[in-house]
Amino acid sequence: MSEALALTLDSDFAAWWAWRRDAHPFTVTRIPFAELEEWAFDPATGNLGHRSGRFFTVCGLRAGADVRPILHQPEIGVLGVLTKRFGGVTHCLLQAKMEPGNVNTVQLSPTVQATRSNYTRVHNGSSVRYLEYFQGRGRVLVDTLQSEHGAWFHQKRNRNLVVEVDEDVPPHDDFRWVPLAEVGTLLGVPNLVNMDARTVLACLLARHAPEPGTALLSWFTDAKARHDRAVDLVGLDSVPGWRRTGTELRHPHGGTILAAAVSAPTREATAWTQPLLAPPAPGVVAFLGRTRAGRTELLVRARPEIGCRDAVELGPTVQSATGADEPLLALTLALAGEPARVWYDTVLSEEGGRLWHAESRYLVVDAGDAVVDAGPDFRWAGLGELAGLLRHSYYLNVQARSLLAVMLAGGRRA
Amino acid sequence: MSEALALTLDSDFAAWWAWRRDAHPFTVTRIPFAELEEWAFDPATGNLGHRSGRFFTVCGLRAGADVRPILHQPEIGVLGVLTKRFGGVTHCLLQAKMEPGNVNTVQLSPTVQATRSNYTRVHNGSSVRYLEYFQGRGRVLVDTLQSEHGAWFHQKRNRNLVVEVDEDVPPHDDFRWVPLAEVGTLLGVPNLVNMDARTVLACLLARHAPEPGTALLSWFTDAKARHDRAVDLVGLDSVPGWRRTGTELRHPHGGTILAAAVSAPTREATAWTQPLLAPPAPGVVAFLGRTRAGRTELLVRARPEIGCRDAVELGPTVQSATGADEPLLALTLALAGEPARVWYDTVLSEEGGRLWHAESRYLVVDAGDAVVDAGPDFRWAGLGELAGLLRHSYYLNVQARSLLAVMLAGGRRA
Repeated sequence: MSEALALTLDSDFAAWWAWRRDAHPFTVTRIPFAELEEWAFDPATGNLGHRSGRFFTVCGLRAGADVRPILHQPEIGVLGVLTKRFGGVTHCLLQAKMEPGNVNTVQLSPTVQATRSNYTRVHNGSSVRYLEYFQGRGRVLVDTLQSEHGAWFHQKRNRNLVVEVDEDVPPHDDFRWVPLAEVGTLLGVPNLVNMDARTVLACLLARHAPEPGTALLSWFTDAKARHDRAVDLVGLDSVPGWRRTGTELRHPHGGTILAAAVSAPTREATAWTQPLLAPPAPGVVAFLGRTRAGRTELLVRARPEIGCRDAVELGPTVQSATGADEPLLALTLALAGEPARVWYDTVLSEEGGRLWHAESRYLVVDAGDAVVDAGPDFRWAGLGELAGLLRHSYYLNVQARSLLAVMLAGGRRA
Repeated sequence: MSEALALTLDSDFAAWWAWRRDAHPFTVTRIPFAELEEWAFDPATGNLGHRSGRFFTVCGLRAGADVRPILHQPEIGVLGVLTKRFGGVTHCLLQAKMEPGNVNTVQLSPTVQATRSNYTRVHNGSSVRYLEYFQGRGRVLVDTLQSEHGAWFHQKRNRNLVVEVDEDVPPHDDFRWVPLAEVGTLLGVPNLVNMDARTVLACLLARHAPEPGTALLSWFTDAKARHDRAVDLVGLDSVPGWRRTGTELRHPHGGTILAAAVSAPTREATAWTQPLLAPPAPGVVAFLGRTRAGRTELLVRARPEIGCRDAVELGPTVQSATGADEPLLALTLALAGEPARVWYDTVLSEEGGRLWHAESRYLVVDAGDAVVDAGPDFRWAGLGELAGLLRHSYYLNVQARSLLAVMLAGGRRA
């Protein structure tokens, strides 16, 4: 990654990044479940949870015959990006932050990235740096609840906040003012900008977008009506198909639950153990795009995911968490073989606080006239119109928001 | 009511209304639970449900120490209003429709008002009249999911649809084309326009409203973060405080569950039995308003209700389902004693399909400078800005939408 950085970013940023990456003497070690501190399997349900009842719980979710493991974290986290104009140019205060599940441990993260458990100090850590700016001290540019992965989390959402200040804010060593105009370049570097930063930046970049049209909203409502189904939380013991050893719970479709010990002097808590969910394979996340009358359009898919708060959100054209087949995946990968069609192609990480080594290949590929009729769950929509949905909650899923950040930032890397 | 109609509406409408009201030889009779057909108490949970698993279930809902009875109906109903221009003037096709829980049995209703169970014909009724226009045959003007009462329903929502057609649509005897401009007058008649019509008409009247500002959205998001709490469905047997007889289940705060036999030749099914929820007392629903620089503002309250899909929706200033005390109720009623302040004051019904004789006094009262600081859950917002929220789901609760319909239709009756 440092080579890619050296190629694409100014040497000043690259030097800071290397300095911070090497400054953190953290270690992440896989451990047996028996060595988890404060976490335990509930004998009545089989659920794996924290003694305090906070953080998250690994449990089951049932929708008809579909019963699978899920992470349940009924808390609203704060993802906050602080902005300030220097010489009229908007800059974002971003953070070199470690997460135990990251493949490369440190990624570029929002100014504040805190679960409610973090910022109310359930695990006795130090207070969250810069949090006060998101509690009334700046001008609010963005403030909306947005979802996390509906395949892995039950109705999880975070508060996406962007605040602008005029006052002097000295950056701590782990923080750096990054010009908003450079976000596109940063997004071209594999596994650099973390998922939480991507979703907040998408909302920021979209904030002047026009109101979406009635036709798009109506199609979305219709998809909810078609896909709506009742969902119940159940005990992890009720989920069939697990194979459990002392170090992992492996599910044929749902990935693997494992445990890790973390030592990280620069995090709010300096050492802890926790479970993590490892997806079964790297994912593929892709928008097919096209240009019509000078307008960029993307093929969105109304995607029912078991953890959606309201049945359906809009996802990218392709979203294969495991690389498994799904409609338009083969076409997308075939088109991506033609370099002139590739608007974006970079490996990015999903969030590393509860997911272990979760990487996906993110693509935007020019489909031209290659897609004729993909069915009722697919729709071509203008980039600006999709951006307008970001002012409101639960329209666009987190994978779609990542790729919208790429498109709105003008970041294309083939 | 016919006197009020004669005073406020043209005699043609009044004559039609009297004709239809008297044309329906329906009867609604309270019966013991033992005489319910197809409905039964589940011995394992105490829940009262339908044999098919459809329609709704009376069960319990728990949020911490707060455990109460709730109606659970995990289905998206369709509330559709058909519109057409006659001589350039928008008219709505409204229906004289009976509901078993209505105090006056027949109210003015949307063109289509159907649960999924209705329109998929679970109870073997005849097909739903005009449904085809909402399944692709007209131009969609409004199409959004909106909530029902969060105090009585668990995450219930309906699809609010308005469709415009050019073709000739002959009205059946129970249907009438009503000019949209007359809706304000109709809303001044007690218990005439039903709740489902009010919510759809609010969305229609609001459809050209501007996008709401970031400050309002941010305050709403903050209220969700403050009030968020975990909620679980539980068996009705887990709800403390019930007193059960052969004819009713009475709860000190949650109202009374009763059973009724209905004979209604003009409904989709001609005879059936069902349970209903009777609120403990008539409600009071009121906005305090004021005028600032020529702009009408309303004092909204971010209101956490146990059945909200996402913690909080915006309600009117006062919303006392039982007439019980709450902030600003006494002030509102005192101000309503000054006729010059009263913009609207009419008794309206909540929906009569599952609620029994649920009436509320709906008010909009000019507060002038009478409210100084009502606390963080209250906020003055422009009428236009609130209207702009109606393009999207779950911002405004059903009581607020009723009063927005009144304000947007220009209906004021003191």
